[in-house]
Amino acid sequence: MPERFVVVGGDAGGMSAAALARRRRAAEELEVVAFERGGFTSYSACGLPYYVAGEIGDIDVLIARTPEEHRAAVIDVRLGHEVVGIDLERRTVSVRTTDGDSGARDEPFDQLVIATGAKPIRPDLPGVDATGVHGIQTISHGIALHDDVKGRERAVVVGGGYVGLEMAEAMKKRGLDVTIVEAGSQPMPSLDPDIGALVASAIRAMGIELISEARVVGFDTDGDGRVTAVATADRSIPADVVVLGIGVRPAGDLARDAGIAVGAHGGVLTDRRQSTSVDGVWAAGDCVETFHRVAQRPVAIALGTHANKQGRVAGINATGGYAAFPGVIGTAITKICDYEIGRTGLSEREATAAGFAYESATIEGTTRASYYPGAEAITVKVLVERNSGRLIGAQVFGREGAAKRIDVMATAIWNEMTAEDFGQVDLSYAPPLSPLWDPTLIAARAAASVLAS
Amino acid sequence: MPERFVVVGGDAGGMSAAALARRRRAAEELEVVAFERGGFTSYSACGLPYYVAGEIGDIDVLIARTPEEHRAAVIDVRLGHEVVGIDLERRTVSVRTTDGDSGARDEPFDQLVIATGAKPIRPDLPGVDATGVHGIQTISHGIALHDDVKGRERAVVVGGGYVGLEMAEAMKKRGLDVTIVEAGSQPMPSLDPDIGALVASAIRAMGIELISEARVVGFDTDGDGRVTAVATADRSIPADVVVLGIGVRPAGDLARDAGIAVGAHGGVLTDRRQSTSVDGVWAAGDCVETFHRVAQRPVAIALGTHANKQGRVAGINATGGYAAFPGVIGTAITKICDYEIGRTGLSEREATAAGFAYESATIEGTTRASYYPGAEAITVKVLVERNSGRLIGAQVFGREGAAKRIDVMATAIWNEMTAEDFGQVDLSYAPPLSPLWDPTLIAARAAASVLAS
Repeated sequence: MPERFVVVGGDAGGMSAAALARRRRAAEELEVVAFERGGFTSYSACGLPYYVAGEIGDIDVLIARTPEEHRAAVIDVRLGHEVVGIDLERRTVSVRTTDGDSGARDEPFDQLVIATGAKPIRPDLPGVDATGVHGIQTISHGIALHDDVKGRERAVVVGGGYVGLEMAEAMKKRGLDVTIVEAGSQPMPSLDPDIGALVASAIRAMGIELISEARVVGFDTDGDGRVTAVATADRSIPADVVVLGIGVRPAGDLARDAGIAVGAHGGVLTDRRQSTSVDGVWAAGDCVETFHRVAQRPVAIALGTHANKQGRVAGINATGGYAAFPGVIGTAITKICDYEIGRTGLSEREATAAGFAYESATIEGTTRASYYPGAEAITVKVLVERNSGRLIGAQVFGREGAAKRIDVMATAIWNEMTAEDFGQVDLSYAPPLSPLWDPTLIAARAAASVLAS
Repeated sequence: MPERFVVVGGDAGGMSAAALARRRRAAEELEVVAFERGGFTSYSACGLPYYVAGEIGDIDVLIARTPEEHRAAVIDVRLGHEVVGIDLERRTVSVRTTDGDSGARDEPFDQLVIATGAKPIRPDLPGVDATGVHGIQTISHGIALHDDVKGRERAVVVGGGYVGLEMAEAMKKRGLDVTIVEAGSQPMPSLDPDIGALVASAIRAMGIELISEARVVGFDTDGDGRVTAVATADRSIPADVVVLGIGVRPAGDLARDAGIAVGAHGGVLTDRRQSTSVDGVWAAGDCVETFHRVAQRPVAIALGTHANKQGRVAGINATGGYAAFPGVIGTAITKICDYEIGRTGLSEREATAAGFAYESATIEGTTRASYYPGAEAITVKVLVERNSGRLIGAQVFGREGAAKRIDVMATAIWNEMTAEDFGQVDLSYAPPLSPLWDPTLIAARAAASVLAS
């Protein structure tokens, strides 16, 4: 009888693990089963804002691999199947179908990959379950929001993080009046306040209202139970449609309830091979805590790239191979209207929390030679550790050509380069594509100067 | 009496040295004099194709700092002054004005920076001095070509390197029929043949004729001494205007004749502080040979970025400071019409010449998520050393968003990362800006797989 490789969760982390396992072991040796609560596999949640905006006409393009494709690869995908418990003694998972007409059934496993993803933070406020108040995590959410926006006039987005801003832009593109309500003092709290202020200006410049330091206290509804306004401590903001973009938490409950170790953020703890505290049980994706190489501590960062890489690593190790996930450094980018935003490493707040003494430097440059048509302003901020001179964080803000420059800084930070050394790296130059000194080099040099002074 | 800091050559290398020296020492302590043969200082030769193309209306924008601005910073810039000899015993340079009405005069120095740049390769062929045959190295060349193109119909570019291709595109944009004559089998000989073939297709797709493996034997002229055709061994190609883009060599003669060590490429040899073989004599820019960190040998690469960095280093060291230029890795990019091309590290030929056993992998990806509007194809090739797995070279070809990705590979190669390790780096992802796995990561993973198989 073949061994049984069971995956809980059919998105990036789980299906990467399943695909790798399948590739490494023949069907006679290994049965691969994936339980997915919803109706889709391997989809790009990051692409949902562009579907809502109407930039992508067909939501199917967001599905990297369909259940049928997985099945053609001899992966037994079971949609509408929710895993509600793990019995580590008997090596079984308890599975319930979501159509509700059957009880839980035990399914055995030899190797188990937990890839339960993240759960959106949903405030326990009056009216939060009203019609027209949307979560935005799954393909189904995306379709519901896309369809609901039609004919509406006023949207409110609660939360000014990446997804919140992307959804705000999407609805703006659909012709709605859009307001973002942010609890903190700036949008994108993972950026420093000075860079966040640039983002705030850009948002407002595109005609989106941005209300900071506002505490949402509830949602008003009409007689049909449809949302009519978002109530903050100060005022009521009319809304036909509301998007909750407050963030997500690792969905670690299933693992924790089974006795598998979870961390301070509620995510499953793993070693670098994605092994949990229990032999033969692995975890990958948004449900895990990941080692931050600069902060040197576990963090919870929900991102498809990490999920995909971790899933591969889990799939290789769970089938007797060796692979390691070396951790993250907090790299993230987005595009809001004509503006691109990127960050990597630590922000000032994160650096302080991790115990770094640091200096920073911020420069303004251009994406191309300043005289070349289409040259755009770009702001680059870098953080350097005080004694070592090591780069520990970077943020960029600008128009076309700005964001992807964060990858260069990420590679430098990954390699623990000093600002001094990075400032000398042989980066490319051609007037249509870059100034003589790339802005990342100028920022590094500026930081090295601050340290030397 | 103040010390005397003398610079030979008023472009990127020389004027960076002069500016740094000036910034570090007061005028009472240090006199800074720069002799420049031509009529301009600190200009962007790399920007000339865009002036010729008409994309930049005013050539003044290519001048980063004018002689007047340098003089305002108390740098004594002497235009039209050619240094024709160096007397290391007497610590003087012999200077002649280029207006021809005076003999050479000796000028003393305490510290000397040689920044004589590169000299274009000019084939000794019949008709090479005809009217309408243009070199393209200086601002004056750029103005002459720009003006001469007006009203012409047929241009021939001799040489298919970076500058040749950029000039070909420029004249195409001005409405001329353009032919590129290349001695080798492909344009851009610093790329591998497979990537060069992509460039060749792109050039032809924009309606430029490309003739490879053609040996130019002379230039035909009319009765007025104006070029009418470029003669190759096989045929005659009609031409109203001809651009020579065959390449450049370090202008090391002045140094060599004075007894200063030059290398195999004819460039001035320096240590990492840009010190020549003679105490108190420094060199920077296109006239020097530079240490290639991957090939581990001196190379001659004429590029404004290196000149600028080396000039700074020379200026700091020549005024009693400490700075080092850590070498190059052969990074270069360009944009030809809608296509972007980049390379870093070693090509296959260079890797073989440097004694590397290597494997390569080439992948095709997209610049954005494949479903996102505006996603463009990108080809990434990487070379890895066989035993160590270390990345030793990379080339990219694609449309918008392709070229600058070479900087990430450059930073990885600079840090001697293996393909395996680089494939795990936390690079950024957002559908409008990148696929889930950046193409550079996919290429590295592919190369790691080749090594493992």
